[in-house]
Amino acid sequence: MSLLEISSFAAGTWIAPGAGARTIASAITGEPFATAGNSALDVQAMLDFARNTGGPALRKLTFHERAKMLKALAQALNAQKQALYDLSFNTGATQSDHLIDIDGGVGTMFVFASKGRREMPDGHVYLDGDVEQLSRHGTFLGQHVCTPLQGVAVHINAFNFPVWGMLEKLAPTLLAGVPAIVKPATNSCYVTELAVRIMLDSGILPAGALQLVSGGLGDMLDRLTCQDVVSFTGSADTAMKLRQNPVILRNSVRFVAEQDSLNASILGPDAEPGTPEFDLFVKEVSREMTTKAGQKCTAIRRIIAPQTRVEAVIEVLSDRLAKTVIGDPRLETTRMGALVSNGQKADVLAKAGIIGQEAERVFGDPDAFEVQGADAGKGAFVPPMLFHCADPDKAQRVHDTEAFGPVSTIMGYRDLDHAIAIANRGQGSLVTSVITHDPTVARDVVLGAGAYHGRIYINDRTSMKESTGHGSPLPHMVHGGPGRAGGGEEMGGVRGVKHYMQRTAVQGSPEMLAAIGGTWVPGAPENTGPAHPFTRRFGELAIGETLHTAPRTVTLDDIEQFAHFTGDTFYAHMDDAAARRNPFFPGRVAHGYLLLSFAAGLFVEPNEGPVLANTGLDGLRFMKPVSAGDSIKVRLTVKKKTRRTDDYGEVRWHVTLTNQDDEMVAEYELLTMNAY
Amino acid sequence: MSLLEISSFAAGTWIAPGAGARTIASAITGEPFATAGNSALDVQAMLDFARNTGGPALRKLTFHERAKMLKALAQALNAQKQALYDLSFNTGATQSDHLIDIDGGVGTMFVFASKGRREMPDGHVYLDGDVEQLSRHGTFLGQHVCTPLQGVAVHINAFNFPVWGMLEKLAPTLLAGVPAIVKPATNSCYVTELAVRIMLDSGILPAGALQLVSGGLGDMLDRLTCQDVVSFTGSADTAMKLRQNPVILRNSVRFVAEQDSLNASILGPDAEPGTPEFDLFVKEVSREMTTKAGQKCTAIRRIIAPQTRVEAVIEVLSDRLAKTVIGDPRLETTRMGALVSNGQKADVLAKAGIIGQEAERVFGDPDAFEVQGADAGKGAFVPPMLFHCADPDKAQRVHDTEAFGPVSTIMGYRDLDHAIAIANRGQGSLVTSVITHDPTVARDVVLGAGAYHGRIYINDRTSMKESTGHGSPLPHMVHGGPGRAGGGEEMGGVRGVKHYMQRTAVQGSPEMLAAIGGTWVPGAPENTGPAHPFTRRFGELAIGETLHTAPRTVTLDDIEQFAHFTGDTFYAHMDDAAARRNPFFPGRVAHGYLLLSFAAGLFVEPNEGPVLANTGLDGLRFMKPVSAGDSIKVRLTVKKKTRRTDDYGEVRWHVTLTNQDDEMVAEYELLTMNAY
Repeated sequence: MSLLEISSFAAGTWIAPGAGARTIASAITGEPFATAGNSALDVQAMLDFARNTGGPALRKLTFHERAKMLKALAQALNAQKQALYDLSFNTGATQSDHLIDIDGGVGTMFVFASKGRREMPDGHVYLDGDVEQLSRHGTFLGQHVCTPLQGVAVHINAFNFPVWGMLEKLAPTLLAGVPAIVKPATNSCYVTELAVRIMLDSGILPAGALQLVSGGLGDMLDRLTCQDVVSFTGSADTAMKLRQNPVILRNSVRFVAEQDSLNASILGPDAEPGTPEFDLFVKEVSREMTTKAGQKCTAIRRIIAPQTRVEAVIEVLSDRLAKTVIGDPRLETTRMGALVSNGQKADVLAKAGIIGQEAERVFGDPDAFEVQGADAGKGAFVPPMLFHCADPDKAQRVHDTEAFGPVSTIMGYRDLDHAIAIANRGQGSLVTSVITHDPTVARDVVLGAGAYHGRIYINDRTSMKESTGHGSPLPHMVHGGPGRAGGGEEMGGVRGVKHYMQRTAVQGSPEMLAAIGGTWVPGAPENTGPAHPFTRRFGELAIGETLHTAPRTVTLDDIEQFAHFTGDTFYAHMDDAAARRNPFFPGRVAHGYLLLSFAAGLFVEPNEGPVLANTGLDGLRFMKPVSAGDSIKVRLTVKKKTRRTDDYGEVRWHVTLTNQDDEMVAEYELLTMNAY
Repeated sequence: MSLLEISSFAAGTWIAPGAGARTIASAITGEPFATAGNSALDVQAMLDFARNTGGPALRKLTFHERAKMLKALAQALNAQKQALYDLSFNTGATQSDHLIDIDGGVGTMFVFASKGRREMPDGHVYLDGDVEQLSRHGTFLGQHVCTPLQGVAVHINAFNFPVWGMLEKLAPTLLAGVPAIVKPATNSCYVTELAVRIMLDSGILPAGALQLVSGGLGDMLDRLTCQDVVSFTGSADTAMKLRQNPVILRNSVRFVAEQDSLNASILGPDAEPGTPEFDLFVKEVSREMTTKAGQKCTAIRRIIAPQTRVEAVIEVLSDRLAKTVIGDPRLETTRMGALVSNGQKADVLAKAGIIGQEAERVFGDPDAFEVQGADAGKGAFVPPMLFHCADPDKAQRVHDTEAFGPVSTIMGYRDLDHAIAIANRGQGSLVTSVITHDPTVARDVVLGAGAYHGRIYINDRTSMKESTGHGSPLPHMVHGGPGRAGGGEEMGGVRGVKHYMQRTAVQGSPEMLAAIGGTWVPGAPENTGPAHPFTRRFGELAIGETLHTAPRTVTLDDIEQFAHFTGDTFYAHMDDAAARRNPFFPGRVAHGYLLLSFAAGLFVEPNEGPVLANTGLDGLRFMKPVSAGDSIKVRLTVKKKTRRTDDYGEVRWHVTLTNQDDEMVAEYELLTMNAY
């Protein structure tokens, strides 16, 4: 059988394996299956192509345009999932594992597409936080903005999730407007290569936005600058080598790492046998041990249970693990496939040996287990192995040895503080879970262990039907952890996009900030348009376009009428003496909602027109009470415009109500939908 | 004269200089003046004291309590400013320089105190962003939280701002709940030591919250873990040494660096001689060159002007620099004092020599300048020096050599793209300014140069009266920059506090998230209190306490009456046919403000009571239109409570309006002030 040739995609060209190529074996049979790598790759040309062609093309697009691009890429991948599944079995993964890797990867891209549309602007500058008042009269303000880095993102990925591992980094990178060079782990790079081919063949991406290195990176990292990012997933040892790179250190190249992690799961003190939480705990632990044959950076490596429940957990968990059918992942009845390679198998067994110095193996024998449909002696199969560590305080290696396979160690705790201390012994992890029905337990764990863990997953009878699993990083939530876990963060919605952008503190006049952010800022010029703004279509309205209304006097009769009509007879509006006793009011005052309603009466244009609906209101603050006899007038200014559908877009208006003395009475932002 | 002994404060004890102490000279006279350092400091005891005593004490306090502590510290320092001024003259700084260092440092602390009260919770967990919907039925949600790191912050500061340099790091550290060990540069550590004494003597800080190393850190950095932070300000060379520390790399110790920076200022193409911007430019450049004798990490090192204006700038700037009186900083007429030491003077002259290889010195001669009231041969005096680089594209050293004194290089640009390219040649800076009255110039600079600069300062005739200066980092805005500037960020309000906290993605049921954040989450239990919540005082109200109102039917007559009363006769409420043509409405619908007003009528308790005022409303969204004949009812739930003054606090209510079919009509958050 001739070997599958896995290519790189460099500077616009597919490059077949060449000098220095490596052979890749099937995880199931141990037989050579593919070849990848070419040490003659011109890495400088790749960097140049990304920086000079890919980056500028991506930066021309708005965040929304890039979000649409992500959605189209996800759809292209979705349409060819079966081909990815078929190829991916060779990595030892089962169909359920594929759902995590392939469907999970595509789903991540869809979420970023959606978040890009909903949470980022239809423009080129992302505003980070509110305007800062830096001056008394408001002529000098501050605003943080994020713009795309002008370099390239180098993604160095782990072997375990060849599709998700690429897409969870690629989605925020492209959304930020930064081109990527993807370097998958060689063991499973054939699946990544197919996914890259699907994306490139779709024609959705501008040239230079995505390149692929199947094989080694050469000296690419020595050529990075402050505009580049390295995002690494893999072992702590490899991370340490990369971190020491003097170019990375000297140029302060951003280095995001996600590496070893001794994740833990805590069984709450309340979760006794017989409770839904006890059963849930065993189920989650068992699933985390066996999914992807335990080759998950988030898998549970340490099982932390009340001392008095350790035996019960071992018993029930062992029963469950005993039912795990191991074998050829293509067989439907197989529950756990193979490790990615025999090299990985040797590593897992060696690490299990280290753990075995401090803990007793209570389930699983690597020398005696059944494998269906494959030759256990040739494929990279191991059984689930459960260890019991009787003295987790004295032990060290169970807290720092990551056996990257179906291996976990159970340890007992005396009280919750002890459980937290044990969890923190990992010196930084990606995720710790706590299975409890007691909110105070959950709170104590977050306060005591939060600083050591990138994610804390809480589950109980209430959430178990909809919970997503201890081991599943979600695009909405940050993935990463301190210390041993690498100190990096990925995903987490827009947070993940910011890793590929520079945050810049901009200071200047309101007019300057408005021009930069495409968002009107109080104090920036107000332009009176050619007609009432409600008669102007979405595309006609300009940022800063303003309506000033005539004033309206608020009478005591208005207040009375409003109170009796709405039923809002709150004492501050009805009882002068009571209102005077209140620290905020000079006497009876108008209802805030009366002011809002009168304001609308002042600014709306009643006739049918491009304004379709008032959809909401943000940040309303009442600043000064309005008494009978006072008058109010309104200023309504276009703050921001966001296209929403093919037919209409959202207009955000900045509104102020002022009284007869030009004092600010109320301030808010109004949302309308406007036809194009 | 006996030397001033500058002590360290370690593990609760003041330790006088001892073995390995260094002599510190006066910047003005060059004479020995003080001694500092003790190589026998027990750094492990210091770390233990911070971790085991200071950290737990700080973490017991809420963010608001820590903010109050900062305010008290700032007041204590303010009360003894004169003593700090008096001592600080010895560093060569003038009284105006003291305003930046001492008053600026105290002001920074006040701003963090204020931001802590206004932007952080009166609790122990900071919520980072919104709740994430991770499940269809809402039983499983996500929320990012920040909790204090459980280690220690090691602050390694530069010599130039012995007070501000400490306080700008200390304020966010303490606000986060993390103890600090401060290590000032030895050259000016005597000023820092006095500031530390003032703070410790005030008795405001818990034991272990603040320690001081006057002298060397020993092997402290080799003892750090994933819970510690190093925040460094100083030279790129020193930073590089620290970055390579294997313990820092292996444990992913957070390392925040602020180092060399070749900051630039761009004169806009529009700012011709005769415009206010041209004069402003010369003024800002001159001030940045001479303030603190140019020993500012944010000083303008590269002056980028249109090619055709270079000569004019040199002429006017030289005139201005010629008027700078150099001398003993204690003299009122002195405009520029000394460098901190003769070592620093030698370094500045050496760097000026390097710059001189690529640029011609057009102003200032270090061998011929006047010094008033001091001996130029003994004190560390240098004159302002202006260089002109004729070919900034070919030059390299002018873009990478930071002469940390009153030294700057002017270079010409052809067009704005060229100006941006020159600015970016610094490969990462703390700040670039652009003096322009043209908003499109400002926008182009931010889009083109934002990725290379931590701050972009824009100034013109509009903002010049209130602007804070190119070189002033403000506590509201991030301070730091990519690449050569170190890749770190400090301050920026709450952003700076987060550097000392761990962000954790928490997942769980609404009840769990509510317990952790002290903030009600939709889906968490609703408790009907013993009485109408408006009759309950601030302290009596519980998170989750809920009122369900009776329904009210909305009639066509209500809509008519509201329209004519308020004047809001928008067609969607008045014209059935027009409303039907609208994509959102089934026909005439009730006004959103009518619904809000009726809702208030349904939920308010009219009698005088603990609710003092409705102060605002956030995040209102109208979800489903209400037609005549529909009814609405309200659910009002206590979401969050924040003490505001001695008399009352803010209650944030989560409110939903539902119709007769229990469909959501509107959702918002209501703010009230409630008496204790």
